Amino acid sequence: MEISFLNWLRPRIPAHPQVLVGVGDDAAVLAATPGRAWVVTTDTLTEGVDFRLAVDEPRRIGRKALAVNLSDLAAMAATPIAAFASLVLPRSNAASVAREVTLGMLDLARDFGLSLAGGDTNTWGDGLVISVTVLGETTSRGPLLRSGGRVGDAVLATGRFGGSLLGRQFDFVPRVREALRLHADFELHAAIDVSDGLSLDLFRLAEASGCGAEIDPRAIPIAPAAYLMSREGGVGKTPLEHALSDGEDFELLLAVGQAEANRLLRSQPLETPVRQIGRLVATRGLWQSQEAGPPLPLTPTGYEHHGAQEPGP
Amino acid sequence: MEISFLNWLRPRIPAHPQVLVGVGDDAAVLAATPGRAWVVTTDTLTEGVDFRLAVDEPRRIGRKALAVNLSDLAAMAATPIAAFASLVLPRSNAASVAREVTLGMLDLARDFGLSLAGGDTNTWGDGLVISVTVLGETTSRGPLLRSGGRVGDAVLATGRFGGSLLGRQFDFVPRVREALRLHADFELHAAIDVSDGLSLDLFRLAEASGCGAEIDPRAIPIAPAAYLMSREGGVGKTPLEHALSDGEDFELLLAVGQAEANRLLRSQPLETPVRQIGRLVATRGLWQSQEAGPPLPLTPTGYEHHGAQEPGP
Repeated sequence: MEISFLNWLRPRIPAHPQVLVGVGDDAAVLAATPGRAWVVTTDTLTEGVDFRLAVDEPRRIGRKALAVNLSDLAAMAATPIAAFASLVLPRSNAASVAREVTLGMLDLARDFGLSLAGGDTNTWGDGLVISVTVLGETTSRGPLLRSGGRVGDAVLATGRFGGSLLGRQFDFVPRVREALRLHADFELHAAIDVSDGLSLDLFRLAEASGCGAEIDPRAIPIAPAAYLMSREGGVGKTPLEHALSDGEDFELLLAVGQAEANRLLRSQPLETPVRQIGRLVATRGLWQSQEAGPPLPLTPTGYEHHGAQEPGP
Repeated sequence: MEISFLNWLRPRIPAHPQVLVGVGDDAAVLAATPGRAWVVTTDTLTEGVDFRLAVDEPRRIGRKALAVNLSDLAAMAATPIAAFASLVLPRSNAASVAREVTLGMLDLARDFGLSLAGGDTNTWGDGLVISVTVLGETTSRGPLLRSGGRVGDAVLATGRFGGSLLGRQFDFVPRVREALRLHADFELHAAIDVSDGLSLDLFRLAEASGCGAEIDPRAIPIAPAAYLMSREGGVGKTPLEHALSDGEDFELLLAVGQAEANRLLRSQPLETPVRQIGRLVATRGLWQSQEAGPPLPLTPTGYEHHGAQEPGP
């Protein structure tokens, strides 16, 4: 990092007792808690794909770059410790963008008690890239994986889905506290955060768990923004279709044994409602239940990463 | 990561016993070794600044993206465990670039016994960005910091300096094994890897240690490439000037008590020679010794990161 940026940054970084050496040396040094495993996730936002620098505030973009990583930690039920941020900055206004993006990350880091322990900054002639890696630790109950779901599990969801483009894609609060709370008080089998689309991410959880998933369409909590987009968005999707496929809801999907799920649903331990939206089933694939008759196949839809897609056949 | 890339990648990843959950879940899970701290570093290479995609082979670029991070771990005397790679790919040939870059990283990962435990891929219309984060662990002797140098310490250097542009900037072998060997067998006070320039990085080590550094110009080991560049490079620098300022040598500078340094220099425990190039002194700043007379000030030169530079006064 450039020295004047480092001098600006250092006093603004929230401390964390496990960060023994932070920014400024060749690498950071982090103390481990005995008996805990490390949980590490990395995610990148790119200009023109994930945000538009001409429209979206850099501070909001920076906040989101950290928030999407915290959402991944939430899905593992891990406690955040420290973030590492690599900024590739457009040459024209590198200094101000770097500061605003970093301030956005620091706002959220402070809210979630994690430190910024390293990173680097580069400038070039192309667009803004923000690549963030977050380290956290498992709780004494270990990590929550995608693969722990079992046939017969209830599928639970926090919050509401759809229409995140209208603002929630930037301003969501990652479900870290909610995940830790539920993981501590209930026997959860599996989790995933909804980044790419409710139906697609549920399909992924089911696949990782070696089973299928059946959604009850009438049980999906649909966000007001999904209704608004359906009415005014002009893409001809119903509110339910928005909820199933929009993505960037950053809510949690959980697989929980049905009896334990009933206990959880009765107690509603979070500020946000938790609802059962379906269950894991023996037949692979994604299904939607009907009021009468057998379940129908449902195509998982959402944002597919075409980062390194195969050339078509 | 896109599913076909993931399927291609998975069987190619070297296993590591501490990587409990690797690519494919929301985050990776890594087991900690009791009593050891984690060492984390992140570095980004960008097209047009660090490489030219039209000229440099993607596999070589990918190897370097991991190697620069391993060099930082070496400077901390840490054992590499796992890497996380974020690729932002030009849309035109995303799939082949992603594979070649990854193969380059995997080549080096295999050499150094680390795993690739996560990452993400994105495509866009701009240039290639490779952002790598590496996690390692301290040995039982703890981390080696920049700040541990003391007045009177000998400054030792591995290898030779200058002219890295002629090839060594890509093909260097990060000094991980050398650092671990020296840290195990000798009492080292401080270290830094030379990424930005011998004189600049030595100045940084001295500053972090709260002292100055005096270089003996006649003791600097100059690489053959520095002579070649001086003769044919057309920038009018002497071989010594190349050695002091070119950077990307990725050699180690070590601060060691003089008696211990003498023991190390006599035993020459590495395949590459270790030489004394100067010492830490009480007067802050960078100095060059003369055959007769007091030391002269030396301007630290090298590659300064202008990532988030302040607007000029």
